[in-house]
Amino acid sequence: MPTRPFPGSLRRLGEFGLIERFKRRASQTSPSVLRGIGDDDTAVIRMRSGQLLLLTTDLLAEGVHFELATAKPGDIGYKAAVSNLSDIAAMGGVPEYMVVALAIPGSYTIAQLDDLFQGVIRACRRHGVQLVGGDTSASRGGLFICITVTGTSRVGRPLTRAGARVGDLLYVTGTLGDSFAGLNILKTSGARTRFSATSHDGRHLRYLIGRHLRPTARLREGQLLAAHRLATAAMDLSDGLSGDLHHLCKQSGVGAEVEAAALPLSAACRWYAATRHIDPADFALAGGEDYELLFTVSPDDRDTLARLVRRIGFPCTRIGTIRPKTSGIRVTPRTGRSRFLTPMSYQHFRQPATPGKTSVP
Amino acid sequence: MPTRPFPGSLRRLGEFGLIERFKRRASQTSPSVLRGIGDDDTAVIRMRSGQLLLLTTDLLAEGVHFELATAKPGDIGYKAAVSNLSDIAAMGGVPEYMVVALAIPGSYTIAQLDDLFQGVIRACRRHGVQLVGGDTSASRGGLFICITVTGTSRVGRPLTRAGARVGDLLYVTGTLGDSFAGLNILKTSGARTRFSATSHDGRHLRYLIGRHLRPTARLREGQLLAAHRLATAAMDLSDGLSGDLHHLCKQSGVGAEVEAAALPLSAACRWYAATRHIDPADFALAGGEDYELLFTVSPDDRDTLARLVRRIGFPCTRIGTIRPKTSGIRVTPRTGRSRFLTPMSYQHFRQPATPGKTSVP
Repeated sequence: MPTRPFPGSLRRLGEFGLIERFKRRASQTSPSVLRGIGDDDTAVIRMRSGQLLLLTTDLLAEGVHFELATAKPGDIGYKAAVSNLSDIAAMGGVPEYMVVALAIPGSYTIAQLDDLFQGVIRACRRHGVQLVGGDTSASRGGLFICITVTGTSRVGRPLTRAGARVGDLLYVTGTLGDSFAGLNILKTSGARTRFSATSHDGRHLRYLIGRHLRPTARLREGQLLAAHRLATAAMDLSDGLSGDLHHLCKQSGVGAEVEAAALPLSAACRWYAATRHIDPADFALAGGEDYELLFTVSPDDRDTLARLVRRIGFPCTRIGTIRPKTSGIRVTPRTGRSRFLTPMSYQHFRQPATPGKTSVP
Repeated sequence: MPTRPFPGSLRRLGEFGLIERFKRRASQTSPSVLRGIGDDDTAVIRMRSGQLLLLTTDLLAEGVHFELATAKPGDIGYKAAVSNLSDIAAMGGVPEYMVVALAIPGSYTIAQLDDLFQGVIRACRRHGVQLVGGDTSASRGGLFICITVTGTSRVGRPLTRAGARVGDLLYVTGTLGDSFAGLNILKTSGARTRFSATSHDGRHLRYLIGRHLRPTARLREGQLLAAHRLATAAMDLSDGLSGDLHHLCKQSGVGAEVEAAALPLSAACRWYAATRHIDPADFALAGGEDYELLFTVSPDDRDTLARLVRRIGFPCTRIGTIRPKTSGIRVTPRTGRSRFLTPMSYQHFRQPATPGKTSVP
């Protein structure tokens, strides 16, 4: 799930500061835990049978991750499931089983809960996952949905964030910024009614809203990267490229350079950015919840990836290069000199029409 | 975790009505899922290696499951972990890995979160579990903590709620009602200061509060029952005997008779009940969060269990007998005729000094 800034005294520490703090306290030592707290998209555990167990959990809070004003309960359930499945995709894993815990305010109706649950079930069926249990509780402060997914690695070597090397090529799957554009549309009153549903613009709107409300977990792509041993590192884009790239670089001990002109953008996203007079590259850098994969490939494997892309229709675009850690993480705009890429907070995403700013508010 | 009644339109449906509804919609068919939604304390999955995977999740909400007025963050973290571990214990399982998701209000300090996390870590260390990951988020409505635990079954046959047969003997581990008494003490202002810490009464108070704030998951007992194939059915007591027994009977398709005089009560609980002029059996029937095991044993295995109890110091008490489904679920008081045992809602527990009532409020 995307990071949201904490209010109050926790804000200075931030989510990742908090996780680092927890990691130190937990002081893990068991050799069966291959990837533990804060290391990767999922925990990776070697079981006694030798099989790898992937384990990931995500909690979504009303008023923080979603609002009923912009998403139906079915969309919330669907996306809550996908955000976990996307973590499994980032490891090249196969998701298997899911449990769902809900804290439900008294204001929710049974019909809303049916819709929410239907959204979870749809995501499970679409991605081949079994829902096996859960927990329900009352809530005195909005709806909370916490989903946990287990998975496995068929190829015995999950993708991690830690293997990128200097000179590796940086790729993303699909297009970036669509979900952010969709959220902006949903938050802008009247935007949906301004265009007829069948018009060219209406189709763009529906596409962007659909990408925000019903994202896809890139399971097949992650599994192919793992099976062909093509990715030296990988993670899913939930917070937005500008922030997530920092996590991959930190775990791999490297820097990176992103070419803004290379960022893959849908026609709909370009159209929407133009209507708002915003550089669409900023959508791609700042926008969260794309659930695309960010991955690195050795230059030696560039042709193998290209063949896979042609043969299977694997949607991916090279967006930059891994650099030494000392170079930092930089973005080269279409015109002008490269600059350091600052993580753009999701706070950002909650204010329509401000993606042009690239500093943390 | 204990069931709490839903407010609003969900109240009529209740937690178990909601789970039944979800179960029908999920329409599970995979043969790898041995126990699924709503069936048992944990999901039970047969993995490709043949190994059994136990999977359980519990969500605790501030103002519903805990209040900072009666529990420190460390106690909340500890108990959140134990409530999951107790579910693994009820299956005779061995807990292995844990993930923790937190939604944190801005009013919480870093020191409070350190304390919360320390409580989770302590419970993990005490019960031999590895904390491997999690998720953190802001919350606009109180603290929420969702813990998921995986486990396995060393003996290849987990305990379930479904195997009790007519004539089986009904047992519980430990003593009942202590946690409820402890909660009542914590909610009664001044109760803790009325007795000196070193006095006889002060020791009782400390014991009951300790049983409420730092319960024990009966892992060893569950594992022994599974290893010796002694229990025909088992579950953990989180909601209170009066409610939980209904779940075991429903899954097994049987009725039951409980003898009130046989209910195991600690000296501290008897003392506290006397000071409140309440029948201590009502604490044992209504009180939630004991995290003791409720289990059934064939009369043929009574002596084997007795030998195990003597040899290992396994704390358990026979409290009744499994009867045909048509007899219903009944309790025989110390004096007078048996009556139907009505599940007592946890709503109850939130009002000190009312455990004497046995109807759902």
